[in-house]
Amino acid sequence: MAPKYKLTYFPVTGLAEPIRFLLSYGKIEFEDERCDKDKWQSLKESMPFGQVPVLEIDGKKLCQSTAICRYLGKQVGLSGANDWENLQIDMAVDTVSDIRMKIASPAYETDEALKEKKKAAVINESLPFLLPRLDKLVKENGGYLANGKLSWADLYFVALLDALNLMIGFDITKDYSNLSALKNTVLEIPAIKEWIAKRPKNEL
Amino acid sequence: MAPKYKLTYFPVTGLAEPIRFLLSYGKIEFEDERCDKDKWQSLKESMPFGQVPVLEIDGKKLCQSTAICRYLGKQVGLSGANDWENLQIDMAVDTVSDIRMKIASPAYETDEALKEKKKAAVINESLPFLLPRLDKLVKENGGYLANGKLSWADLYFVALLDALNLMIGFDITKDYSNLSALKNTVLEIPAIKEWIAKRPKNEL
Repeated sequence: MAPKYKLTYFPVTGLAEPIRFLLSYGKIEFEDERCDKDKWQSLKESMPFGQVPVLEIDGKKLCQSTAICRYLGKQVGLSGANDWENLQIDMAVDTVSDIRMKIASPAYETDEALKEKKKAAVINESLPFLLPRLDKLVKENGGYLANGKLSWADLYFVALLDALNLMIGFDITKDYSNLSALKNTVLEIPAIKEWIAKRPKNEL
Repeated sequence: MAPKYKLTYFPVTGLAEPIRFLLSYGKIEFEDERCDKDKWQSLKESMPFGQVPVLEIDGKKLCQSTAICRYLGKQVGLSGANDWENLQIDMAVDTVSDIRMKIASPAYETDEALKEKKKAAVINESLPFLLPRLDKLVKENGGYLANGKLSWADLYFVALLDALNLMIGFDITKDYSNLSALKNTVLEIPAIKEWIAKRPKNEL
């Protein structure tokens, strides 16, 4: 019997969307549990390290979205052909993750003035430094983040974009033609198109 | 000819020490370039995404310490026996990385009062939630972070401890017998002992 997959996260794209993209790409059916803040309080204790997303495979709870994506990437044929290629993928993924953390950091500020100051630093310093380099990486890799071919790094990046763009207030790919093209490449994959057409609309 | 390895980082343990531990474990010779703040300003532009540690292998610059450690872990025989085991390792590593980021976060605050408030929250809330769970994970895995055997996750964790303990002001393993035991296990590995005996002493 095929293993049973159940994904638990909040009712948003966020850190779970790369997992949803990869499961969809692999045509792996999964229960997509979306729990609200109230329900989360009662679930938190039962989650490893008190965080989501958590993917259960046959009841075994897996945490850490990037680790889960690397595993799924391998299962669905989107990892590298050897250790060196996997290293290139992992470097790209961790760089995307750094960008995500930069963009998310102002949200953790409670002081409004400090929040705005941090957001300005992200927009005026961090992103203008990091995004041209990421764009160049995609150019050098023929339209992908690594190894000149589609990998789970590409799905990981594009799946996170909705959340990143929402947090920062604009499409971070807009001034970067290679990043924009990569976004289109991933969004045009039939299985991803299908997933986006059927995923819940009433969310961030 | 054996590949040439050159590691560039600041003159501290920090994020480079897991790489140094893994290279030492594998008896891989490497140039250990430690650059100070002044030199860093002139080096930053030449580093992928402007960050260190960077490991050069035969002149190819690799960034992202965790990605590098995963690659080296595989080369030195400290990765999992299969995809599932590698997932367990990656989950543990990303959890350690989360703990590192929690501990490091107050250091990025410029406001003294806010810095103290954040540090108190790490000490009184984050660590008492996360460390017992990490300790339990080690207990369940027979003294290791994953799969009941030594992996690169264990070296990764113990190599980071100096920096973590320095930032937070005490040994985070002190109240956790399984984490303390794991620390001793790794520090007793002959190749690690040798490395620690010969590494520069005048650093954080």
